[in-house]
Amino acid sequence: MAMPKGPQAFPRAEYLRRLSAVKAEMKRREVDVLMVTSPANITYLSGYTSKSAYVPQGLIIFLKEEEPSFFTRHMDAPAAMHQMFIDNGRVVGYPEALIANPEMDGFDAVIEFLHDKGVASGRVGLEKKFISVQAVEKFKTKMPKATTVDFGNTVHWIRGIKSDLEIAVMRESAAIADAGMLRAKQVIRPGVREADAAAEIIATLVRGTNGKPGTDLSSFFLCASPRSATAHIRWGEDIFRQGSQINLEFGGVRHGYISALMRTFSIGKPSDRLRRVHEGEVAGLEAALATVKPGATCGDVAAVFNTTLKKYGFEKKSRCGYAIGIDWTEPTASLRDDDQTVLKPNMTFHLMLGNWIDEDFGYVISETFRVTETGAETFSSLPREIFEI
Amino acid sequence: MAMPKGPQAFPRAEYLRRLSAVKAEMKRREVDVLMVTSPANITYLSGYTSKSAYVPQGLIIFLKEEEPSFFTRHMDAPAAMHQMFIDNGRVVGYPEALIANPEMDGFDAVIEFLHDKGVASGRVGLEKKFISVQAVEKFKTKMPKATTVDFGNTVHWIRGIKSDLEIAVMRESAAIADAGMLRAKQVIRPGVREADAAAEIIATLVRGTNGKPGTDLSSFFLCASPRSATAHIRWGEDIFRQGSQINLEFGGVRHGYISALMRTFSIGKPSDRLRRVHEGEVAGLEAALATVKPGATCGDVAAVFNTTLKKYGFEKKSRCGYAIGIDWTEPTASLRDDDQTVLKPNMTFHLMLGNWIDEDFGYVISETFRVTETGAETFSSLPREIFEI
Repeated sequence: MAMPKGPQAFPRAEYLRRLSAVKAEMKRREVDVLMVTSPANITYLSGYTSKSAYVPQGLIIFLKEEEPSFFTRHMDAPAAMHQMFIDNGRVVGYPEALIANPEMDGFDAVIEFLHDKGVASGRVGLEKKFISVQAVEKFKTKMPKATTVDFGNTVHWIRGIKSDLEIAVMRESAAIADAGMLRAKQVIRPGVREADAAAEIIATLVRGTNGKPGTDLSSFFLCASPRSATAHIRWGEDIFRQGSQINLEFGGVRHGYISALMRTFSIGKPSDRLRRVHEGEVAGLEAALATVKPGATCGDVAAVFNTTLKKYGFEKKSRCGYAIGIDWTEPTASLRDDDQTVLKPNMTFHLMLGNWIDEDFGYVISETFRVTETGAETFSSLPREIFEI
Repeated sequence: MAMPKGPQAFPRAEYLRRLSAVKAEMKRREVDVLMVTSPANITYLSGYTSKSAYVPQGLIIFLKEEEPSFFTRHMDAPAAMHQMFIDNGRVVGYPEALIANPEMDGFDAVIEFLHDKGVASGRVGLEKKFISVQAVEKFKTKMPKATTVDFGNTVHWIRGIKSDLEIAVMRESAAIADAGMLRAKQVIRPGVREADAAAEIIATLVRGTNGKPGTDLSSFFLCASPRSATAHIRWGEDIFRQGSQINLEFGGVRHGYISALMRTFSIGKPSDRLRRVHEGEVAGLEAALATVKPGATCGDVAAVFNTTLKKYGFEKKSRCGYAIGIDWTEPTASLRDDDQTVLKPNMTFHLMLGNWIDEDFGYVISETFRVTETGAETFSSLPREIFEI
């Protein structure tokens, strides 16, 4: 019996539109075939979110064919048939004998396929940042007549401007993140273990809200006293105490799309230092959002934040944010002084104002937003407060 | 104020023992300095489990120095100080200006450090599978007098034989996985959404058991009808129905160490096909475990499983398992017919008997075990049943 198609997150026309944009770039660079290996780019171009990127896989886009083909491990082919909009016949599960085999791997199957298709002597696009040194060498050695062309972050830049359909999904993700943060307000109490609070918040992110479950979990960080200066620890084995500060960062996920959210909690009255940095950060956040509009640059937004924060006596060393979408960070535009990327409608950013100030003190707040025709729309509906327990 | 050290998962002597094994290999290969970039290897050699591998980072081991140095993003340095056994002064947070910077990244800081230490003209070890093409090129270009030596899976092989301390942690992880599976038995019911069951199971994996919380989440897959042929889908948006089959795969995590577990659930009486494959798989599983002892090979174990399963009229295309430890799969020994790795005491494996038989049917069961002096010890205490709801 054949694997049935699952419910698709987007209509076929949406995927074809995305592929057309990639093909236009392939045409411009005279590339007949492109192998996409960035997992987020594969999701973007096909709807696939199953977790098989731990072994070689590639979405093969031919300039002259409407649908791409997908090479993945044999055991992962049914999930690709279920999730991808493409014809099941275009999903190729390569043999399990290529797994953990020091001589050959799944890319050997791709190379054989490209030879069979007669495109192994032309210009072949690869995403070299998303493929190992050894794999690139293999393509060069086994396709000696081909020229490999690095597509770098090309597909990521195409992803940068979302469709209205994508924005709708990111709003669903944001509602889930909000629900998680509200659950945190209920469960963070003195005497509670960090892990028990994390369990409740994470369960909320999975259950989702408004009848729409989370479809995955993404990064989750609960950095509490005495670890408020850390940014990426899951949670500790301690219990919360009177006076604890808790920095939370996580996202809601729908169909791979993430809306991220950060808030700081204080059990008891926040310290003076915490209140002062919060005041400066929120002023900076609001000034930054007021700067967002089509035509402004990422650098403009960052400069306004940094200038405002400085007036309050603080500075933030890390960038103020980054493009966000599938699998959290997009490696393209940064909200940073020297980033001249021009804002356009439906670009989406995580205005990430986490500030790890000293070895014993950090603070977090953030908003995920889209650029509108006239300004910015934040997706979260939570207040910009220190949540005091 | 300085970042305090967190509770260490292992004593200092344990980390020094691990480092000695790596240094012996460095000496043999005449390498003065090795940059470890595999996140699991960094955890193994330092205790670090914070999630900063999304940007360049490296644990720098000098043949002639007792403790390694760690280069990471500035904002991640406090977490490294908190978690790593090394002196805080050996944690170097490189400037935030190197993040999302097309000209330079964290590896430029490492290269400068190696020049300063006078080791940039010797033999420099890299883990080339765990570093981008561009980064390897950068090391070659900016250290023209050095010879880079690929350490491949060298550290992974050293990790293969666990200490008794590591085994104790893996038993804690296994108890958490068991608790998760028992929670699944309580919450999988007709009419329940897959996401709601997943939320409860995942929350249990975070809370842990016996007073020991999970310290992280790892892979989690709930593949239910009509998706039982898929292997790596998180969960669906459907509800369970009478007659649904549910394949569960997840692990408990303590300090990075994972014990994995797979079981199949059936709402109502299992189908004949499901009962038949289960009978063959359990017979194969038990025959395989009975084959495990020091001196036998991975291939021996796989052959016994495959031969037994064939007697029941089934075959499994994918390998029967793999070495497991930090971050799930170790890319070393496989339980596969042609793997001649000789079993030694305290090697640990995931005997992974998931079998995705047809496009509409898969089945899962697994055990995480260690090789003992005389046989095998499985870490889970759950029965090897189809869990019938």
